[in-house]
Amino acid sequence: MRQFQLFTKTSRNAPKDEESKNAKLLIQAGFIRKEMAGVYSFLPFGLRVLNKIIGIIREEMNAIGGQELLLTTLQDPEVWKKTGRWVEEEADPQHGLPWFKTKLVNKGELGLANTHEEPLTNLMREHVASYRDLPRYVYQFQTKFRNELRAKSGIMRTREFIMKDLYSFSRNEEEFRAFYEQCAEAYMKIFTRAGIGERTYRTFASGGSFSKFSDEFQTICQAGEDTIYVDKKKNIAVNKEVYNDEILMELGLKKNEMSEERAIEVGNIFPLGTKFSVPLGLTFKTAEGSEKPVIMGSYGIGPARLMGTVVEMLSDEKGIVWPESIAPFSVHLLALEGGEKEAKALYERLEKQGMEVLYDDRTDKSSGEKLVDADLLGIPTRIVVSARTLEQGSVEVKKRNEEKHELVKLDALTL
Amino acid sequence: MRQFQLFTKTSRNAPKDEESKNAKLLIQAGFIRKEMAGVYSFLPFGLRVLNKIIGIIREEMNAIGGQELLLTTLQDPEVWKKTGRWVEEEADPQHGLPWFKTKLVNKGELGLANTHEEPLTNLMREHVASYRDLPRYVYQFQTKFRNELRAKSGIMRTREFIMKDLYSFSRNEEEFRAFYEQCAEAYMKIFTRAGIGERTYRTFASGGSFSKFSDEFQTICQAGEDTIYVDKKKNIAVNKEVYNDEILMELGLKKNEMSEERAIEVGNIFPLGTKFSVPLGLTFKTAEGSEKPVIMGSYGIGPARLMGTVVEMLSDEKGIVWPESIAPFSVHLLALEGGEKEAKALYERLEKQGMEVLYDDRTDKSSGEKLVDADLLGIPTRIVVSARTLEQGSVEVKKRNEEKHELVKLDALTL
Repeated sequence: MRQFQLFTKTSRNAPKDEESKNAKLLIQAGFIRKEMAGVYSFLPFGLRVLNKIIGIIREEMNAIGGQELLLTTLQDPEVWKKTGRWVEEEADPQHGLPWFKTKLVNKGELGLANTHEEPLTNLMREHVASYRDLPRYVYQFQTKFRNELRAKSGIMRTREFIMKDLYSFSRNEEEFRAFYEQCAEAYMKIFTRAGIGERTYRTFASGGSFSKFSDEFQTICQAGEDTIYVDKKKNIAVNKEVYNDEILMELGLKKNEMSEERAIEVGNIFPLGTKFSVPLGLTFKTAEGSEKPVIMGSYGIGPARLMGTVVEMLSDEKGIVWPESIAPFSVHLLALEGGEKEAKALYERLEKQGMEVLYDDRTDKSSGEKLVDADLLGIPTRIVVSARTLEQGSVEVKKRNEEKHELVKLDALTL
Repeated sequence: MRQFQLFTKTSRNAPKDEESKNAKLLIQAGFIRKEMAGVYSFLPFGLRVLNKIIGIIREEMNAIGGQELLLTTLQDPEVWKKTGRWVEEEADPQHGLPWFKTKLVNKGELGLANTHEEPLTNLMREHVASYRDLPRYVYQFQTKFRNELRAKSGIMRTREFIMKDLYSFSRNEEEFRAFYEQCAEAYMKIFTRAGIGERTYRTFASGGSFSKFSDEFQTICQAGEDTIYVDKKKNIAVNKEVYNDEILMELGLKKNEMSEERAIEVGNIFPLGTKFSVPLGLTFKTAEGSEKPVIMGSYGIGPARLMGTVVEMLSDEKGIVWPESIAPFSVHLLALEGGEKEAKALYERLEKQGMEVLYDDRTDKSSGEKLVDADLLGIPTRIVVSARTLEQGSVEVKKRNEEKHELVKLDALTL
């Protein structure tokens, strides 16, 4: 893409009304825009990153048998009343965050979905009758609305966000557990592919109102809202909520081998048991002819939170540092003074090779401004073409996450 | 994909609570699910079709210089008050459909976006200062919420739907008109690629509250909600709203050469002039140094309405007939009695070739049921493998939109 044509611009300074590093950098670099507290638009570069993250998650969910659908935002209260999660009060801490509600012009109240266990369980009743119809794994990327009281963590905790939520439907506990472990592995693959695997731990956590325990995936980071205790040798962590002697014994962990860390919850997986299948009537006929409720699980990742986590962890004082896998472009090609003609030819050559190149062909920016922008935008490989590099028949190649520059002969350049 | 694993099932009968052909067929075939009146979920096959349509639109929008972003659903009333489109009354016919409104738990009222002129114009102020920053073309695929009084046209008119909306930002009328015509051409390409080009007409229509006239793209179809007058020789149409002698004279059309038709509005393009840029303060500095408001246009297509239109137009008494370009799969491979082994090998061969194959390997369905389902699902090419076809070393190939069957030698099969 030619940067000259791009409609977004970087700002000289970080926004003053943001507390979090991720929002500051992403707004300054023109990846996102704050519409109001906790509500962000994704500008072209931000959307490219978000879509790459979604692409990775989709691949891994398909690989474990996930079938993608798209449920709705507008929710019929009747379905939620059956599980007791349509709460009349504005804010009921027992049931998590309050709903965003709205009204039909000609009828009653509706909700904006904050999760989708109820409508999906209800839907599955039409497709599950016998043990032959199970197990099934169904997921979506859908916008959730959560009426947060405060929003101060940038794109990591917002009132409106796309979430990947998968739900598993199994015949028995054993089948459920096998998939649960398979999905936990897929989650670690996702975090590793997105560049934060090394600091992300499967974390023993409370099951909330669903079950005794659940698993979170926590990435160690100062900006995190959670506190966890990590045994780095054993590669396991425990959320502060459930950090007690009984649990430690159960998991074979010792207090003096655990370190306390701040962490960001980048994913979670929940056993749901029959909490939803029983009240909503999702049952199946066993091979022996008896009727049983389906065993369920839920598995969530917020792509924007993952994006914010990467920014929090990998950026430096000059700007963002994207891992190759989710970068908006692979190469940032800068035409500096005297290098315009050769840069253009190189841009066309790299595009023809199918590389994703951002080509800074702006004529109203100084070399200094272009270099500052390149660091801020954080594209993994920077190539500079200028009179100075061309004197040696070369271009300058630099990785965003390394200090060293390298002159490479134009003809010999391979990426 | 193996049909055995698919979680959705077809129904023996069409739903009784739907009036429209598109909803009846799409629900019966398991492409969509009705959550409530005017609110539909997209099941795996429906989502595949929707995403193919979105892919075609995205390609054509990128080809004319569109830059994709993603704005938000939650809307701050302050921005809309500036243009007078935040209407306090529940339903104000002057301003189109009433809003869906909601409330922050700790603050005031918000709206659910029904269109995005206001937030985008507001956003562009941060990126447009000079004539050098224009023209720009910005688009998205975003969910719109419209508080329809009635919803009886299936997925063609719903309360919640994804829309492609592009907005153009130009320096003057001439630059705007050039893009407007370019986008009109791109729209015809989209409708042609999606299989409804031949019956779709660029239609002269009212400009609503924005300008004197606009252009609609109307597809002739009995299920349409609009009435248009078409000159098929000249390849142009006029919406009933503005069908009068003055307009006909202006367009050089004659009443006796026009036929009255029912039609579905599959797209529209609107000149917006300075209706939004003036109240929201989106201006630019000209080369001469004066300050001018930006000239805008808006360009909409609803992918789900396009999908519904295809179903209305191309289906037959047995089911849906998808055009290749937007079909959920290219090939529907049916293993009938005695053909299971060879069908499986063929499935693996076709998948390896990168074909999108739905493989009916269900063991609890009769041959008759499989053939009925294949017609209902509407995948363009059906291949049957059975003891009967294998006797001649062959498979049976049939196009969904043709009557003729053909025996093709297994070794010679190329698609």
